[in-house]
Amino acid sequence: MKNNQPDEFMQAAIAEAKQGLNEGGIPIGSVIVRDGKIVGRGHNRRVQHNDPMAHAEIDCLQNAGRIGNYKDTTLYSTLMPCYLCAGAVVQFGIKKVIVGENKTFPGAEEFMKQHGVEIVNLQNEECISLMENFIEERPELWNEDIGE
Amino acid sequence: MKNNQPDEFMQAAIAEAKQGLNEGGIPIGSVIVRDGKIVGRGHNRRVQHNDPMAHAEIDCLQNAGRIGNYKDTTLYSTLMPCYLCAGAVVQFGIKKVIVGENKTFPGAEEFMKQHGVEIVNLQNEECISLMENFIEERPELWNEDIGE
Repeated sequence: MKNNQPDEFMQAAIAEAKQGLNEGGIPIGSVIVRDGKIVGRGHNRRVQHNDPMAHAEIDCLQNAGRIGNYKDTTLYSTLMPCYLCAGAVVQFGIKKVIVGENKTFPGAEEFMKQHGVEIVNLQNEECISLMENFIEERPELWNEDIGE
Repeated sequence: MKNNQPDEFMQAAIAEAKQGLNEGGIPIGSVIVRDGKIVGRGHNRRVQHNDPMAHAEIDCLQNAGRIGNYKDTTLYSTLMPCYLCAGAVVQFGIKKVIVGENKTFPGAEEFMKQHGVEIVNLQNEECISLMENFIEERPELWNEDIGE
């Protein structure tokens, strides 16, 4: 059994994104990993919780709870984080972010890099399709989620 | 009766900060104002909700709910926002932030300014004392809250 595989953790983030879609929400998922183990997971719950701050990464970090120092954690997200979520990464000192894709949303990649965060972009086809389909079907909800 | 007074809204943010302190939490409060009216209020609830993302401004924006476009809103916070909260300001297009003070925490002032956000710093003595006393009494909790 393999451990510490980025693909395994991205698959867990994708499962979160799909759960969100099944709930009528926005299909973005996230997990946070420490020592080769998922210590928190979440997905966008803007619609489900009527909460404009419940981006996937924020939901994931909430669900992880007060885990202390973040310096040895890696955050996975199916989509490049926006400024809200990138702000959390920078403020809490997460050093590495692995993203599913940035084709459908450029996010705050440069901001994170300027603050020394390592970004790995898997440009995963399933992540791209989840967002392309969602944006095509619910453009108004997507624009609301990113403040446009 | 006066309306649209920055001081009235900062007093509401200070009341939130004090409520947080009374609950055993971190004394930072926030309100969001549109058309001269408070449309959301909140305070740091890291301790109360065991939630590392529940900074005052995030709690305030959650409580405001899905209010649509933020371009005509002003966010008040008793303390200069950190990168997490500044990220929310930038992502959702809040154009003006009025802060109680930046003496006890520099926050992400420059980042917000670089993104065209107007910052007004009242350097309010009550806000300064709330934080000075708190940091002196609970330095470990404060460091946890800002990821240090």
